[in-house]
Amino acid sequence: MLGSGNTATVLCEVIANAGHQIVQVVSRKEEHAKLLAAAYSATTATLTAAELDPADIYIVALNDTSLDHVESIPGIRDQLVVHTAGSVSIDVLSSCTSTYGVLYPLQTLSKSSTHVPEIPFLIDGSDKDTLHRILGFAKSISHKVMEANDAERLRYHIAAVFVSNFANHMYVLGELYCNKERLDFKTLLPLIEETTQRVKEISPFLSQTGPAVRDDIFTLSKHLQALSSNPDIKYLYLKLSESIIKFHVKHQ
Amino acid sequence: MLGSGNTATVLCEVIANAGHQIVQVVSRKEEHAKLLAAAYSATTATLTAAELDPADIYIVALNDTSLDHVESIPGIRDQLVVHTAGSVSIDVLSSCTSTYGVLYPLQTLSKSSTHVPEIPFLIDGSDKDTLHRILGFAKSISHKVMEANDAERLRYHIAAVFVSNFANHMYVLGELYCNKERLDFKTLLPLIEETTQRVKEISPFLSQTGPAVRDDIFTLSKHLQALSSNPDIKYLYLKLSESIIKFHVKHQ
Repeated sequence: MLGSGNTATVLCEVIANAGHQIVQVVSRKEEHAKLLAAAYSATTATLTAAELDPADIYIVALNDTSLDHVESIPGIRDQLVVHTAGSVSIDVLSSCTSTYGVLYPLQTLSKSSTHVPEIPFLIDGSDKDTLHRILGFAKSISHKVMEANDAERLRYHIAAVFVSNFANHMYVLGELYCNKERLDFKTLLPLIEETTQRVKEISPFLSQTGPAVRDDIFTLSKHLQALSSNPDIKYLYLKLSESIIKFHVKHQ
Repeated sequence: MLGSGNTATVLCEVIANAGHQIVQVVSRKEEHAKLLAAAYSATTATLTAAELDPADIYIVALNDTSLDHVESIPGIRDQLVVHTAGSVSIDVLSSCTSTYGVLYPLQTLSKSSTHVPEIPFLIDGSDKDTLHRILGFAKSISHKVMEANDAERLRYHIAAVFVSNFANHMYVLGELYCNKERLDFKTLLPLIEETTQRVKEISPFLSQTGPAVRDDIFTLSKHLQALSSNPDIKYLYLKLSESIIKFHVKHQ
């Protein structure tokens, strides 16, 4: 495992849980590598180390900018190497080895989380045989594995930004507003839970509720008026309400 | 129960499940009233009917504009009457009875849903005794009951728009983008689920992930470029990324 951040940490757990051995953890900072390696009795190395230990697969779970320097890592030429990034081309690995690919977890991964979520993987390979090897490995650690090329993976990453990063930002705005107005954000948790439950049952387009989709000008103007002392939040309330009205008029 | 829409339908189920009797369902359209009343062997009436049946509490679950006409409903003077709206003043009921209040479900309610979610109620009353009666009723149908005046209830409604209506709009944008780009939206469901699970464990501000909060210009520009054939979605991607950067710089 090359990397010791959120993705590397959660993937180590998933891979070890599936019965594989974490041979070595490689990180820029050796203390980070040691922390993660300790749980798996793995060796450690720094990214600038000499030879890496032999392994069946080298997983490069570094951030996107560090990926550009992966060609300088010694000891992985002719080995099976995959990266885990949504919006980085498979070919970033082409100068470091002949057998490479992608193992992209379509999930939000946090080392501080108390549980390991279900992780769908989007995979790709530099050739048919390599893809087949990556597929076998991915299936051994997840029930949901799909092939996706660079363009498809990039699009899934964009869709993921909307449904996860931007949805979470809506929770952030709700939380900041609650804190400012001395409301209890936790009171909203059953509502958040139910909104998410419903998307499993029915198209979110069909289950959209609220003043904007009803074109309820009365409530919209009351809310905008009440938000006059929170201009940033008011601006987004307006933009998002406009967007809801626009998309529902356009697609109905 | 005055009303036969989503709120009225789900509240009838919650109230009946708690052991209360639904005496009568009142709706503008008698066939709607009959449909809902049938499940509870309740009588029906139209909003313009003569006297309503005697009941311990009259719940006005009409949309906000219809609430303005509630004073013209005969037979509820001197009865206990509550409305269920987040952004309508308690005083909209003052001309129809002397004992009135609010029973606002802080939840997204849909008659087509296959389950009844947990519903926190925000309540208010025209005087101490009335509030006490509404509190007793609310506690008999929910484990989460809080007092909230007009201004507080309006603010909770605004926060609810962000965490539910706007979060769902993010799912809608993800779904529309997937449909357009021939991606499988269902592949994103574990990610949606995990994002919501995390908000129960940790402040969403602290768990924000994605290219915007990392200020990862490389990925942001790749995504914006890939969205050039989806100008509406691209516009929101930009606005929401700006907002994430702004809020995290401002509050860190």
